[in-house]
Amino acid sequence: MTVRGAMDLPVVGMVGGGQLSRMTHQAAIALGLSLRVLADATHDSAALVANNVVVGSHTSEKDLLAFADGCEVVTFDHEHVPGELIRAMEAAGHTVLPSSAALRHAQDKLVMRERLHHLGAPIPPFAAITTKEDLEAFGDEHGWPLVLKAATGGYDGKGVWIVDSLDDAAPVLGSGVRLLAEHKVPLQRELAAVVARSPYGQAAAWPVVETVQSDGICVEVVAPAPGLSEERALEAQGLALRLAQELDVVGVLAVELFETADGLLVNELAMRPHNSGHWTIEGARTSQFEQHLRAVLDYPLGTTTLTAPVVVMANLLGGAGDPDLDKRLHLLFAKDPALKVHLYGKEVRPGRKIGHVTALGNDLAETRARANAGAHYLRTGEWPTP
Amino acid sequence: MTVRGAMDLPVVGMVGGGQLSRMTHQAAIALGLSLRVLADATHDSAALVANNVVVGSHTSEKDLLAFADGCEVVTFDHEHVPGELIRAMEAAGHTVLPSSAALRHAQDKLVMRERLHHLGAPIPPFAAITTKEDLEAFGDEHGWPLVLKAATGGYDGKGVWIVDSLDDAAPVLGSGVRLLAEHKVPLQRELAAVVARSPYGQAAAWPVVETVQSDGICVEVVAPAPGLSEERALEAQGLALRLAQELDVVGVLAVELFETADGLLVNELAMRPHNSGHWTIEGARTSQFEQHLRAVLDYPLGTTTLTAPVVVMANLLGGAGDPDLDKRLHLLFAKDPALKVHLYGKEVRPGRKIGHVTALGNDLAETRARANAGAHYLRTGEWPTP
Repeated sequence: MTVRGAMDLPVVGMVGGGQLSRMTHQAAIALGLSLRVLADATHDSAALVANNVVVGSHTSEKDLLAFADGCEVVTFDHEHVPGELIRAMEAAGHTVLPSSAALRHAQDKLVMRERLHHLGAPIPPFAAITTKEDLEAFGDEHGWPLVLKAATGGYDGKGVWIVDSLDDAAPVLGSGVRLLAEHKVPLQRELAAVVARSPYGQAAAWPVVETVQSDGICVEVVAPAPGLSEERALEAQGLALRLAQELDVVGVLAVELFETADGLLVNELAMRPHNSGHWTIEGARTSQFEQHLRAVLDYPLGTTTLTAPVVVMANLLGGAGDPDLDKRLHLLFAKDPALKVHLYGKEVRPGRKIGHVTALGNDLAETRARANAGAHYLRTGEWPTP
Repeated sequence: MTVRGAMDLPVVGMVGGGQLSRMTHQAAIALGLSLRVLADATHDSAALVANNVVVGSHTSEKDLLAFADGCEVVTFDHEHVPGELIRAMEAAGHTVLPSSAALRHAQDKLVMRERLHHLGAPIPPFAAITTKEDLEAFGDEHGWPLVLKAATGGYDGKGVWIVDSLDDAAPVLGSGVRLLAEHKVPLQRELAAVVARSPYGQAAAWPVVETVQSDGICVEVVAPAPGLSEERALEAQGLALRLAQELDVVGVLAVELFETADGLLVNELAMRPHNSGHWTIEGARTSQFEQHLRAVLDYPLGTTTLTAPVVVMANLLGGAGDPDLDKRLHLLFAKDPALKVHLYGKEVRPGRKIGHVTALGNDLAETRARANAGAHYLRTGEWPTP
């Protein structure tokens, strides 16, 4: 059964109640829709603001099938739904986008690397690691330190270890986690190419951005990537568009890239709205959240033009103690009336992504300083020293 | 009792479940809030998308007091809550913004005109009309045809009659409605000055816009008003800011203006987000919906800068028959990928405001054409002949 809204518009279901669902719901409202959210709990970020919330587990086939039953299309706020359960929804006749076949490349780092290697896309040297001998051989060939990654389940720096030696790697090797080793690339910086693609095959790319990480967590995104040559920007966008097509992605695809002295290398893929695209809410004519909805509904995609020469997003991470966000917001708005603040309604815990701030401007250094000062102030209650 | 959200942020209640509440909820999400909506029914525009919906009547003191009980501040999506019920909420200790004392100037056209006359603000000649003799005297002095208006309850052209003679006015005069007569001003065009003001007294103005009406309903808003001299724009903004202060408005104040050969005249006031400000969602750095929330929460106000040289909003009115909006949206997005569409989730009825489209551009004629073509197509399923 397909339930349609008052305007006879489709119902889109998103599995997961995090901030990506929350911001997708915000975009859905403009399109006359109301996102249907499968949330773990009623206090999940998206469950606090959406009308059509189903509480259930994304690892329960029963819950997923019941959730999909009212939806024109089912899409995802995260990669953690087991592939066999996505295939069960598909087998039951539901439209799931991205499909299980596409999504496995964002769910399994080894599957992704093997596929990209096969496609001739630039990636760092890697190998599946099962034994100490596998790792020793990889280290002998590509040098130490190297990067060990869990093939599945990692995020925000979790599931990634930089190891200096076999001894250093022993606890991870013995943990039973499926692993891959990757050459520790001498990178200059990280970039992201975010695109969207519809079932019809139409695709659109936003300008390539620079992403800045701290302890494996993205803390800042600068659009467009400063000083990136047009040639390299086109190369990154072309690569992302090609991967979207080859992997048959529908929705937003974020391609995380390393920029090295020798060129670009693909780091990770995400097939959903992504932290590196939050700046598009105010910074582009079509946000990644609206675009994701347009894509999964097979509407033609929207213009991705920038709305300002420089757009900078800084993540707001939870700080220590009771933040009194209401008071800090008050003072921040007084200090910078042009800053755009997004709070996710999440309980504040140290290091947790609880919101982001976006600054738009003409000057790179000034715009970066404004965005980072805003996030720093909301986190700590103190203005950064200039 | 004041209920606060997961981030310990305030709960804002909005009385009325129309599209203004719907779009205010959209803005609330970014601020970490979830609007609490008092709706007539679960299928109201805002009730379809908000999480915290209370179904009740805005003319029931019991319902209003129960609704206000969970809110840090109560505000409005329309002017139809009787003054004595707003005062009852205030008497019970609730923060209501705008206050009953301010809001009566947007609820009662006669009270508004008497106050503005007293303040020396420019308004068309008017008089309270109780008898045929009152009307005859006004007609003798200011000429026929003249405008008769219901002092309360009118909207979108309802409650406004242009009458040629006493005979013509007889049905209205005999209807028992409280009336005022107003000189039929030889206007050149209509403008709107939209501002916001906080309890602290801070105020901010958006650029003055031109509004185009058809059959008493706003069909198009052009920002900034084409060809308006800077002097007159400042006069209009200054007037709106002065009225916001004099009437102690908190939240958004829209001042509808007539531009005549002799200058500006105030037509009507609205103390809430207003149709003449919908363009601000994409067209200004701070939308009227975010600004209204910031104002009633006494946060410092946001920047009102334009995001494009020309911004045009065209209202989408319901057309005849079954529109198949999903299909039309598909084709519209293919035709103009830069158009921003807002659908309100309302049942389609002829002439009803069911959404709006916004175009941003550099060229006035082209941007107007795009916005109007989009609204026309969604309404009729046909492209306008160029």
